[in-house]
Amino acid sequence: MSTKTETRKEEIIRIAAKLFKQKGYSAVTMRDLAKTMGIKAASLYNHIESKQAILQDVILTIAEEFTLGMASIQNQKASSTEQLKALIQLHVRIACHNPDGLAALNSDWMHLEDKLEYYLQLRNDYEANFRHIIERGIENKEIKNVDIEVILFSMLSTLRTLYLWIPKKDRLSEDELSASLTKILIEGINT
Amino acid sequence: MSTKTETRKEEIIRIAAKLFKQKGYSAVTMRDLAKTMGIKAASLYNHIESKQAILQDVILTIAEEFTLGMASIQNQKASSTEQLKALIQLHVRIACHNPDGLAALNSDWMHLEDKLEYYLQLRNDYEANFRHIIERGIENKEIKNVDIEVILFSMLSTLRTLYLWIPKKDRLSEDELSASLTKILIEGINT
Repeated sequence: MSTKTETRKEEIIRIAAKLFKQKGYSAVTMRDLAKTMGIKAASLYNHIESKQAILQDVILTIAEEFTLGMASIQNQKASSTEQLKALIQLHVRIACHNPDGLAALNSDWMHLEDKLEYYLQLRNDYEANFRHIIERGIENKEIKNVDIEVILFSMLSTLRTLYLWIPKKDRLSEDELSASLTKILIEGINT
Repeated sequence: MSTKTETRKEEIIRIAAKLFKQKGYSAVTMRDLAKTMGIKAASLYNHIESKQAILQDVILTIAEEFTLGMASIQNQKASSTEQLKALIQLHVRIACHNPDGLAALNSDWMHLEDKLEYYLQLRNDYEANFRHIIERGIENKEIKNVDIEVILFSMLSTLRTLYLWIPKKDRLSEDELSASLTKILIEGINT
């Protein structure tokens, strides 16, 4: 993940996400983080204000990525099925690129302080937009007329836990995983 | 949930599961439990040995219910699709009847002590049997030839998180939920 262009701040965020995932936000100290990075705790503060600021960065970066991805998908003049396929790809892409950040988001979002409400707003809007795409698909008769909340729950539970599972499956490329998941979630498993 | 036939021990287990769900196993004390039940902490010990014994009871009761359910389903001479439908029903039934216990299982299984290995064995066997049913379905050409781990992950992530979602959806009966989920997970969402 580390590239030539990674800034010190990005490195801090990346390593902090890994520590949050391993030990949980509450158990990680700025001292732990400095130690893991082999630098002095004081020099962390040249790049980042606080542990809370790191958590905000980890979680909101991802939440905003989902929000922008959703906006771009809703902007496309595509069928509901095509939009759902694009959403599956969005989840796979973010889960492949940032599994540690997603783990921190899922386990530690409730530790957000000032930004908690903003995060919850983004999450609620995302769900509402996802629901709306399914709804339109049912109206268009592209999608089966099954209880919409069950469809939404079923897709989101799979997509939101991808990060738990992706690290074990690195034999599958991102594209293969998107293709398999799309087939399963949209067309079902039976022949 | 409380019925005439509930023993004191069952009541302890039921209320403890609710507390574990609210605060996490580690944060709950026998004193909290006694207070919630309006009895003396000392009298808890007439019915149950320790907090660990309660956790074991909560988690292993559920894990064994899944194991026995799986054994009975594998015993049926049914198609793979029928067996998968029966597994969906099994998950819905347990999640509807014991959402607090499932929450404790999902969040606190790692706090099992002596019984941890036994629990992990049951879980691994359950997954292996689930995988085997899918595998047989692919061989029989009942199930699409998609990466088997992606099918298994996708079904299990939905089924294992049902307990998070069921309390919000009590407008749906257990049978309706089973029917909708079966349709979505087996036949997919598109028309």
